[in-house]
Amino acid sequence: MNTPLSHLLANDNHDLREKMKKVLDNPLFTPLYHLSLEEERELAYQRLQLFFSEGLVSVFDFQKDPRRIFAAHEILGLCDGSMSTKFTVQMNLFGGTLLKFGNKPAFQPILEGIDSLKDVGCFALTELGYGNNAVEMETTATLDRETDEFIINSPSTLAQKYWITNGYCHAHWSIVFAQLIIKEEHFGVHGFLVPIRNKDLSVKPGVEIQDMGYKIGVNGVDNARLWFNDVRIPRENLLDAFSQVDEKGTFTSSIKGKRGRFIKMADQLLSGRICIASMTMAACKSSLYNAIRYAQSRLGVNSDGKSSAPLIDYQLQQKALLPLLAETYALSLGLNKVKNNYAQLQGEENAEKETNKELIKMCCVIKPMVTWHGENAATIGRERCGGQGYLACNRFGETISGAHAGITAEGDNSVLMQKVAKELLGSTTMTEVLKETTLSFIPGSLTRLLTLSKPLALVQLREKRLLAKLALKMQKVKGKEAIFNKWMVEESDLVQEVALSYGESFVLQNFHNICKEQNNPLLNDVCALYGAITIKKHLSWYLQEGILKASSCRSLDSKINVTCKKLNERLEELLDGFDIPQHLLFAPIAKDWQSYNDQDKDNQGEINPKHPFLAKKQTRPKRKVQAKTAKKRPADLTL
Amino acid sequence: MNTPLSHLLANDNHDLREKMKKVLDNPLFTPLYHLSLEEERELAYQRLQLFFSEGLVSVFDFQKDPRRIFAAHEILGLCDGSMSTKFTVQMNLFGGTLLKFGNKPAFQPILEGIDSLKDVGCFALTELGYGNNAVEMETTATLDRETDEFIINSPSTLAQKYWITNGYCHAHWSIVFAQLIIKEEHFGVHGFLVPIRNKDLSVKPGVEIQDMGYKIGVNGVDNARLWFNDVRIPRENLLDAFSQVDEKGTFTSSIKGKRGRFIKMADQLLSGRICIASMTMAACKSSLYNAIRYAQSRLGVNSDGKSSAPLIDYQLQQKALLPLLAETYALSLGLNKVKNNYAQLQGEENAEKETNKELIKMCCVIKPMVTWHGENAATIGRERCGGQGYLACNRFGETISGAHAGITAEGDNSVLMQKVAKELLGSTTMTEVLKETTLSFIPGSLTRLLTLSKPLALVQLREKRLLAKLALKMQKVKGKEAIFNKWMVEESDLVQEVALSYGESFVLQNFHNICKEQNNPLLNDVCALYGAITIKKHLSWYLQEGILKASSCRSLDSKINVTCKKLNERLEELLDGFDIPQHLLFAPIAKDWQSYNDQDKDNQGEINPKHPFLAKKQTRPKRKVQAKTAKKRPADLTL
Repeated sequence: MNTPLSHLLANDNHDLREKMKKVLDNPLFTPLYHLSLEEERELAYQRLQLFFSEGLVSVFDFQKDPRRIFAAHEILGLCDGSMSTKFTVQMNLFGGTLLKFGNKPAFQPILEGIDSLKDVGCFALTELGYGNNAVEMETTATLDRETDEFIINSPSTLAQKYWITNGYCHAHWSIVFAQLIIKEEHFGVHGFLVPIRNKDLSVKPGVEIQDMGYKIGVNGVDNARLWFNDVRIPRENLLDAFSQVDEKGTFTSSIKGKRGRFIKMADQLLSGRICIASMTMAACKSSLYNAIRYAQSRLGVNSDGKSSAPLIDYQLQQKALLPLLAETYALSLGLNKVKNNYAQLQGEENAEKETNKELIKMCCVIKPMVTWHGENAATIGRERCGGQGYLACNRFGETISGAHAGITAEGDNSVLMQKVAKELLGSTTMTEVLKETTLSFIPGSLTRLLTLSKPLALVQLREKRLLAKLALKMQKVKGKEAIFNKWMVEESDLVQEVALSYGESFVLQNFHNICKEQNNPLLNDVCALYGAITIKKHLSWYLQEGILKASSCRSLDSKINVTCKKLNERLEELLDGFDIPQHLLFAPIAKDWQSYNDQDKDNQGEINPKHPFLAKKQTRPKRKVQAKTAKKRPADLTL
Repeated sequence: MNTPLSHLLANDNHDLREKMKKVLDNPLFTPLYHLSLEEERELAYQRLQLFFSEGLVSVFDFQKDPRRIFAAHEILGLCDGSMSTKFTVQMNLFGGTLLKFGNKPAFQPILEGIDSLKDVGCFALTELGYGNNAVEMETTATLDRETDEFIINSPSTLAQKYWITNGYCHAHWSIVFAQLIIKEEHFGVHGFLVPIRNKDLSVKPGVEIQDMGYKIGVNGVDNARLWFNDVRIPRENLLDAFSQVDEKGTFTSSIKGKRGRFIKMADQLLSGRICIASMTMAACKSSLYNAIRYAQSRLGVNSDGKSSAPLIDYQLQQKALLPLLAETYALSLGLNKVKNNYAQLQGEENAEKETNKELIKMCCVIKPMVTWHGENAATIGRERCGGQGYLACNRFGETISGAHAGITAEGDNSVLMQKVAKELLGSTTMTEVLKETTLSFIPGSLTRLLTLSKPLALVQLREKRLLAKLALKMQKVKGKEAIFNKWMVEESDLVQEVALSYGESFVLQNFHNICKEQNNPLLNDVCALYGAITIKKHLSWYLQEGILKASSCRSLDSKINVTCKKLNERLEELLDGFDIPQHLLFAPIAKDWQSYNDQDKDNQGEINPKHPFLAKKQTRPKRKVQAKTAKKRPADLTL
């Protein structure tokens, strides 16, 4: 089997993806930069509307093939981080949660309004004071037996719902997470469907919404701070698939314990991590594409002093960009694997056991790896493009700030890595640990067989040894406080390393499997480069453990150099693998940047044609906004 | 001697610095975010005017104490990257160059107009096609013997002057670099003073100025693209301190060769690197201050599950932030050393020899180290602050994008590192090389004496060995093309490593010297941490070379952990060392962020009081802009 790279990387729903890309072949999606905050949000919303209007994706896809939804994230991620952030909250956090926990007749009209944006929703989980400990949140939902209602209340400054996407401008509904209280008894965090705006977008009484203002990126996202001042909702608005409260005020739940119920309710964060990884991966591919194209077309000093050498022929450029390309392939294929597993498990209702735990680990490790990589790739790409990389129109800034959003959204990356390590500890046995530990005391025993020619075995060895080391350390400590100390204060570095080594091993193993199926020499080289840079990254560990010798280090460097040179000859095919259509290549440096900069073009360093948004907005009807937010915007200033 | 840390870090002109900080204690300097591009530029300009109006700094300080000018960069860098970028071009690139090469009676009025912004200038060196090979630029200055004028001309798209700060809005003058041509003979790149705007800011005939538009940061800087269509200037406008053209059209120069003359003309880039490092260092300190303050006041999960542990007590937070703090101290002191050396050499006219070469290396290595560090520190700081780090008002975005600008301005960092390596090669002898190389073949000879307790010796050993390695490799190749290949295609990694190892050695040596003088245990700990993380960064090299053993690795980790914990107890003193006044602490997370987020405060996540800029701008007189640039800005959009 030798699948074209673009087909391989796309993974699933190929026809659908083409249709989605076609929707974006519309001038509304051309980047605009000279916008106010209000305009940025309106533009993101209009784009979202246009995309949804084609009916290519539905919240009900979660029940059929959730990969259709992930695919939409990838396509939108090529174009606009704000639009895709609004999309992911509407579709996954709001839509997905409502579908999973509130799929009852009363909510059908809302569920059906999601795909048309007739019903826009937000997801009010995070509170200002409890972003890192949501289970301790302060917002309450207290049952009023007399009226058969829940009363939603925000008791303090720290209890305000914070960062709520779609909250400031567009959401009619909010899924609000709150401590469920019945007759002064606390039952833990549950989700409630709370109407926050009327259809005319005026805000409901008791709800207060404030703007989060300017951010370092994705300013088209209308993030809000939300307060609930004794807002009453019918008892039925509890999302009750797993926990119910009957008309007598009796609480029942199929899940034991507050923590367990909270985790179940926040289940959509799991697919959310895939969504975020998908968006970020797309932006990363796009930035890397642009950086490499520019390095091919931009000329620098040659041996005769003239400017005639394409920058990509310099080792500096090659060694900066090609390992990033290999890592992008590796992580992209790894993410595909996670998506496939997620889709498979959605079908099986009884998939609670090992396979599910595997999936949790995968989701929690792939989001950090992809978002960190996206930030890094765009940062290095920006630098390698010099001044051109600094122009907004070349879009590295959007990828950097978009990746930053991903790094701490749907779980801070490092906190997710802790979760991965915890799951790994839980699934390992002391027998395995002892086996690893014993082996590592016999110099050269296993490792004699390991050389650079077996990068996967090297990476797997690291994974096992680190996990064994952590397991041994944790085994020795007893008691809540001691465990907390060991985990959070003493062995935090090791915890992070354990998780990362698992992720690298997972990604490389998957890449190897695909290479075996594909039998494509070019792909094998990409995989070899990813393996080599992964080992290089942890070289001091391999030396320290006596697994690699000084001589191997030199071979490793030489392998990396040679493979980079080989890949440099095949960049066209490798970039084609990303399958970015011409109409989504917005960055001038990816195209004929020289004529873009001709003297007669007043392009202001960016793309600003007769954009439909600027033409359209003059005639849009006014919409109501709450009085408090009608801030004076400074009038135009003529210099 | 035990100088207070703040006094030590400030280095020089302490009273002046206090006065400068006081000037910034004015609401005009409070950050504003809801601005159009035009407004951002106008605000940066107004701030600059206000700062200059106090008369605390002058271009003539270059002749007395250039550290006064560097100090201004540091103070302004705490506040606004756009203002400081406009400042550095006016003061250093334009002002400094004019002072050095055009200090003649005819130009006195202009020189005197610099400090008052009566005469604003720009520095037109970079061309679109020759950012990386300026000596090959295309712009020409052809002598017309008949009229005794130079004709400045931009012959192609690639010849446009690109990224010219102050060019789009405010500059009356441009120092234009161009190929000097007399009777068809080329004499290489020289600087010319070209008037580009009249006093009413209308553009002079033959000059075309276009906007570079939105960038990923410092949008208050009015970067321009410039063309010259046969613009005539008097022969006297050649900046002729080193090369002259007399009335007969005879060219004379005290410097041999085109390349030498170009380098001399671009001399102000040297102090420019100190300026950029100073601005970036200030922003870096500010972001690190904010991140650490937030980590102290933000509570996370504790062993009992409640949110009661300050994040800084987690190892994750400590290990992320405290090494950055140590590196900031180390680089800040290293930068001071460079400033002091620069100031010393300015006095000596005959300082052409070794000392000057040392200075060039220092300037070329400190700018990369500081700007890379600034980007990294702000990126990690942002991540460790989670969502709060993502709000514009907490200013990590400004530090990240400001550092990015620094990374490729006044010389791409990696290209400067090549220059450093070249200088190092030039100043080493084959005897030294052979000594190092021989020693490295005797296992344990020198290295027996080296342990972790001597980090400086370890870092110096690395510097010497890498340089020897590179020298040997370069010695073997002969011929222009072969040398080019070796340098640019085969050994680029080693070239970069050589330069970095020199920089680290320089910075650590300087830190050690200061510790010896200071005898301050806290400072010693900071120095020890910097030394340890520097070795950790290159651990695989030390292991590979057989200099450190596996057992040392464990001690190294333990040393880093213990020192981080020690420093964590002394954060107040260490942060006070940055000496950031209360009125320049704009980020809410550095202060009482909880009450900043109270329900009754519609802060929109940013600071937006009754700002004098918004009040003032309504009444400012209109100024002329060239027709072509009067772009329609979208009118306000009511949602």
